[in-house]
Amino acid sequence: MTELWLDQVRWNSDGLVPAIAQDHLSGKVLMVAWMNREALALTVQEKRAIYWSRSRQKLWRKGEESGHIQQLHDIRLDCDDDVILLSVEQLGGIACHTGREHCFFKTLSDGEWVAVEPVLKDPQKIYDK
Amino acid sequence: MTELWLDQVRWNSDGLVPAIAQDHLSGKVLMVAWMNREALALTVQEKRAIYWSRSRQKLWRKGEESGHIQQLHDIRLDCDDDVILLSVEQLGGIACHTGREHCFFKTLSDGEWVAVEPVLKDPQKIYDK
Repeated sequence: MTELWLDQVRWNSDGLVPAIAQDHLSGKVLMVAWMNREALALTVQEKRAIYWSRSRQKLWRKGEESGHIQQLHDIRLDCDDDVILLSVEQLGGIACHTGREHCFFKTLSDGEWVAVEPVLKDPQKIYDK
Repeated sequence: MTELWLDQVRWNSDGLVPAIAQDHLSGKVLMVAWMNREALALTVQEKRAIYWSRSRQKLWRKGEESGHIQQLHDIRLDCDDDVILLSVEQLGGIACHTGREHCFFKTLSDGEWVAVEPVLKDPQKIYDK
């Protein structure tokens, strides 16, 4: 199997690239995580977002605990070959581990970062099943 | 002047964070670049996207050569405090140095990255004035 498309990606010194997940309907930017070569290959193969968890140092099948799987609709590579953009369907409507729709819920207001989006589900109820 | 909001950002070991520029109307993800502390402070102060060029190792006032300035509408920080999302108005309608609307113009098709969006303006005409 040819893997030229994986070779084309400009992995950083840790063998990673940032991957943006964007909602395929609303266009909302849901989150950013990292992928290594295996994560990217599996994302395409399984048609769902699979990242590399830098904190846990292992593959992270998004939704494996929460059920909040991201089904892949389209995948893009940028001009410099070093950022991935995923167009996804966010199952459960919650991408963020805080229980919010997406991770970019803090805006700058009067010199402070202020959370401006609601928690849709208590994180304890997402992860403690 | 308090700079707690700048301290809150989790800069990486190089003192940088990735910043995503998203079109404020279409929701299209235009590009990803990097910011250091000064770039982020200036972006907010001047209400336009200012990045840190890793290749040139200097501040990069987006549009300084091309005229393709990104006017700031909103700025977000993610849950982990390590990614910035800018909502911008892209002057000239071209964010990418290749002359395309945005940088994510390559999609994966039959195991190859294929450019699927048109060049709107010859890059030579953007930069050689």
